[in-house]
Amino acid sequence: MTERTTRHLNEVNLEAIGSLIEKIRQEPQAAKTEWKAEVRWTGAFRSEARSRDLGPLRSDEPSALGGSNTAPNPVEQLLAALGNCLAVGYAANASAAGIEIHSLRIELAGNIDMHTFLGLGGENAGYESIRAKVDLKSDASPEQLKALHEKVVGSSPVGHSLSRAVPLRIELG
Amino acid sequence: MTERTTRHLNEVNLEAIGSLIEKIRQEPQAAKTEWKAEVRWTGAFRSEARSRDLGPLRSDEPSALGGSNTAPNPVEQLLAALGNCLAVGYAANASAAGIEIHSLRIELAGNIDMHTFLGLGGENAGYESIRAKVDLKSDASPEQLKALHEKVVGSSPVGHSLSRAVPLRIELG
Repeated sequence: MTERTTRHLNEVNLEAIGSLIEKIRQEPQAAKTEWKAEVRWTGAFRSEARSRDLGPLRSDEPSALGGSNTAPNPVEQLLAALGNCLAVGYAANASAAGIEIHSLRIELAGNIDMHTFLGLGGENAGYESIRAKVDLKSDASPEQLKALHEKVVGSSPVGHSLSRAVPLRIELG
Repeated sequence: MTERTTRHLNEVNLEAIGSLIEKIRQEPQAAKTEWKAEVRWTGAFRSEARSRDLGPLRSDEPSALGGSNTAPNPVEQLLAALGNCLAVGYAANASAAGIEIHSLRIELAGNIDMHTFLGLGGENAGYESIRAKVDLKSDASPEQLKALHEKVVGSSPVGHSLSRAVPLRIELG
């Protein structure tokens, strides 16, 4: 009888990540991924987004913007996506580096001038800037944490999607 | 006795939007908004984002990426945020233009090369491009719908945040 154990750190399955990296090393095309979501409008400023067979991500606007305040609005979801992406990045890279995370909390904030969205002039309807403050508790040295932080910020899919211009094609069809 | 009625189209409260626009016309500083989210890591690749006092936006990764597949991942959340933002844009601008929306569905897809996220080279961890296909049922003319579509795409906060480079400041604190 043999016993198999799986190596975990921060609850991350290190072998699953190792296998994925090995697969992509041998077959670079496997790194090319496509992601999808489908959004249905449900009345007023409410809508629901679904990906794969997972539960919906509900959206609404605050009362001050004419919504019914039942869910975070799309620009809050954008900050959530960035924070969640950074959290995965810390969990993955800390685990690979042998760093145990005691706790991780990320505060995000960003500014938007509503003139453009409301059709009152201006050119940029989006975030003027976004700040994220990371509170990571760990026994790792400041040098280890600095290296971890730089790795995470330099390899964040949502971070790069925001800090670079992504070509969008939006078609009515 | 007086009776007050509120004008609605597509369930959108047109007077609330009108008041907001009037307020910003008179007091342009009121258009400067700040949005926030707070993310807490909950183990492995799972985390939860909260904005205001609203329920959490849960995040996880698919099994193939070492996650436990309990929620959309951050790059799917980014597509969801874009689709939800476009839905609000259609609802607001259609209502202002007197267009009744029978149904609205938006399919989103985008491509990511995982090499950078996995530390295997490359420079762009983010989306290479994002496509959105909008299915809008309405009695409006093709010309009206074209004008609506251009207005929505030209004033989408999440759309602009993706199609332009947003300055990010991510600090380990």
